Amino acid sequence: MPATQTVAVRVDVNALRDFSIRAFEAVGVPRPDAEITADSMVQASLRGEGDHGMRLVAIWADKIRAGGTDPRTPLETVRDHGGTALLDAHNGIGAVAASRAMAMAIEKARTLGIGWVGVRNSNSCGSARFYAMMALPHRMIGLCLTNGVPLVVPPGGLRARTGTNPISVAAPAKEELPFVLDMATAAIAFERLRVYASRGETIPPGWAIDRQGNPVQDPRKVNEGGFLQGGALLPAGGYKGFGLSVMVNILTGVLMGGAYMEGLSEFSPYDTPERDSFLLGAVSIDHFIPYEQFVERMDDLIRRIKDCERAPGVSQIYLPGEQGFHRERERRMSGMPLDGPTADALRQLARELGIPSVPGL
Amino acid sequence: MPATQTVAVRVDVNALRDFSIRAFEAVGVPRPDAEITADSMVQASLRGEGDHGMRLVAIWADKIRAGGTDPRTPLETVRDHGGTALLDAHNGIGAVAASRAMAMAIEKARTLGIGWVGVRNSNSCGSARFYAMMALPHRMIGLCLTNGVPLVVPPGGLRARTGTNPISVAAPAKEELPFVLDMATAAIAFERLRVYASRGETIPPGWAIDRQGNPVQDPRKVNEGGFLQGGALLPAGGYKGFGLSVMVNILTGVLMGGAYMEGLSEFSPYDTPERDSFLLGAVSIDHFIPYEQFVERMDDLIRRIKDCERAPGVSQIYLPGEQGFHRERERRMSGMPLDGPTADALRQLARELGIPSVPGL
Repeated sequence: MPATQTVAVRVDVNALRDFSIRAFEAVGVPRPDAEITADSMVQASLRGEGDHGMRLVAIWADKIRAGGTDPRTPLETVRDHGGTALLDAHNGIGAVAASRAMAMAIEKARTLGIGWVGVRNSNSCGSARFYAMMALPHRMIGLCLTNGVPLVVPPGGLRARTGTNPISVAAPAKEELPFVLDMATAAIAFERLRVYASRGETIPPGWAIDRQGNPVQDPRKVNEGGFLQGGALLPAGGYKGFGLSVMVNILTGVLMGGAYMEGLSEFSPYDTPERDSFLLGAVSIDHFIPYEQFVERMDDLIRRIKDCERAPGVSQIYLPGEQGFHRERERRMSGMPLDGPTADALRQLARELGIPSVPGL
Repeated sequence: MPATQTVAVRVDVNALRDFSIRAFEAVGVPRPDAEITADSMVQASLRGEGDHGMRLVAIWADKIRAGGTDPRTPLETVRDHGGTALLDAHNGIGAVAASRAMAMAIEKARTLGIGWVGVRNSNSCGSARFYAMMALPHRMIGLCLTNGVPLVVPPGGLRARTGTNPISVAAPAKEELPFVLDMATAAIAFERLRVYASRGETIPPGWAIDRQGNPVQDPRKVNEGGFLQGGALLPAGGYKGFGLSVMVNILTGVLMGGAYMEGLSEFSPYDTPERDSFLLGAVSIDHFIPYEQFVERMDDLIRRIKDCERAPGVSQIYLPGEQGFHRERERRMSGMPLDGPTADALRQLARELGIPSVPGL
């Protein structure tokens, strides 16, 4: 559930994409990798996930220039056997490593029905959804799990021990929109807490606790005294979200021989590698039932859910990911809304890199 | 989180297992299948999940005698290619179909690193955990998803549209206990609601709503006027649990060409096939990193979580599945506790089938 921010300006989506590609190229990212990286951020912003969207363009360019990310993403294939593989990103760009791994998983699934490819020693890949959705045009179901720094307390605990570790699964439909689940296993994504903090808004109980275990109302308190020194996030649905978060840790950092828990680093400082791990999975639908039959069944499932009798005041039942598609369509037509800080950061980046800014920005 | 019930009697675990095997054989289940079926129920009761435990022995014997389940479990391999396969259980016993499918997934993972095997047209398999845990002795991570009748409302909806659809994942450790996640994607498993109802206890808000969308306090109201006619369950963690539940539907019934949503039947009446679908997955750890290294990393992960500073009054932080192992150890030594109705049902079953009852029962 993305938070909306004040819109400072709207610009053409393709112009924004071209600018982002040029910016990444200017800091040493090869053209195909610059395209993937830009696409992952443009898609996030189009779908209303500003946290993983255009605001990251300047941040990534800074991070690469600070030496915290290798712009060439020197991916190494550590293991590759049958339906599985393990890649080492050697501190490259997360979007590049994750999308190459997903392409490998799709190739494996094409012949074997399923492919699972892990990545270690990467920087963050943004929205897990972007990589899960890569499976859709290949008549496949896509899966992406990623780990991250400890932000979430175990039930009964007072300190962060596991990450917001998202789970994304994408499955195609026929006439209906694809099913695209993309959820943090914490009660709330950490970046959303920052949005609430920046607006001076309070948060409901069940999202975060202070270091004594009391519910936090003022989100700024979580970072009082330094990153996460004032508290931590609660898992989604109590021990269930906690269990899923630990599961993601196991299937990513632990299984891939990568970092986990305190071995991971936050996004900043920019000269520090994050050491994230990912799991990318693809499942070929035709290996189970004919694709046409599957997507018709998906339409039926989706329609039955949307036809559900609604509570008073509820205008529509939404499937996971559905609102993101509507938002994307609108933004491709009316332009991408950018908030003030993001617009400023992009203008400054253009000046620093000596490249033309986005028209209308 | 199992509910504790009043203990009427404690009996020897092995005697209970032998009795269950004999009872299943008496209603036409072949010996190896009777063993698997008994084991799945004994393990559930040992770990404190009475809902999927010994109370099911008499119910399954009744269901087989009523013609609602084929005791021979005539499993058909519909597709088998590379890392995936699809089985049709043709209305056989769920525990038999799921464990055979898991054995296939393990064989596939042994050579390919991963195996995903689906089952359709089955009756319920009880605890998903039992099948996920089958992977552990094979140096693998196990996965089991199963679908079930609609019991859970979508966010904003007033009628049940998706099931409690559990997710189970098991991963081995070295000196620590294995990680065993087994969670309903609903706020509460339906059988637990029945336990609250039978005791006349109230339930907290966030578990169930009535047909107008109001929180239900008295769990008996959910079934007022017939099965689920008085309300429905809420998903765990709101739209997140809902999304996971629909994901399970997609990866089981929809993908396997089996039943989903209203196409599924409840456990009773006993002469009706349930038509559940399952997904069984196995991941070979050695295909990613050496097994020894993995289990040492698991020990480290588990210890760091358990060492977390605790809230006042919390004596220990538990990992998913941990308490089940402690309970199992205690019950193997002190005997299996049975509640009054379960003890009565087993005694009556012995009389009806003309087999010796459990000593001490």
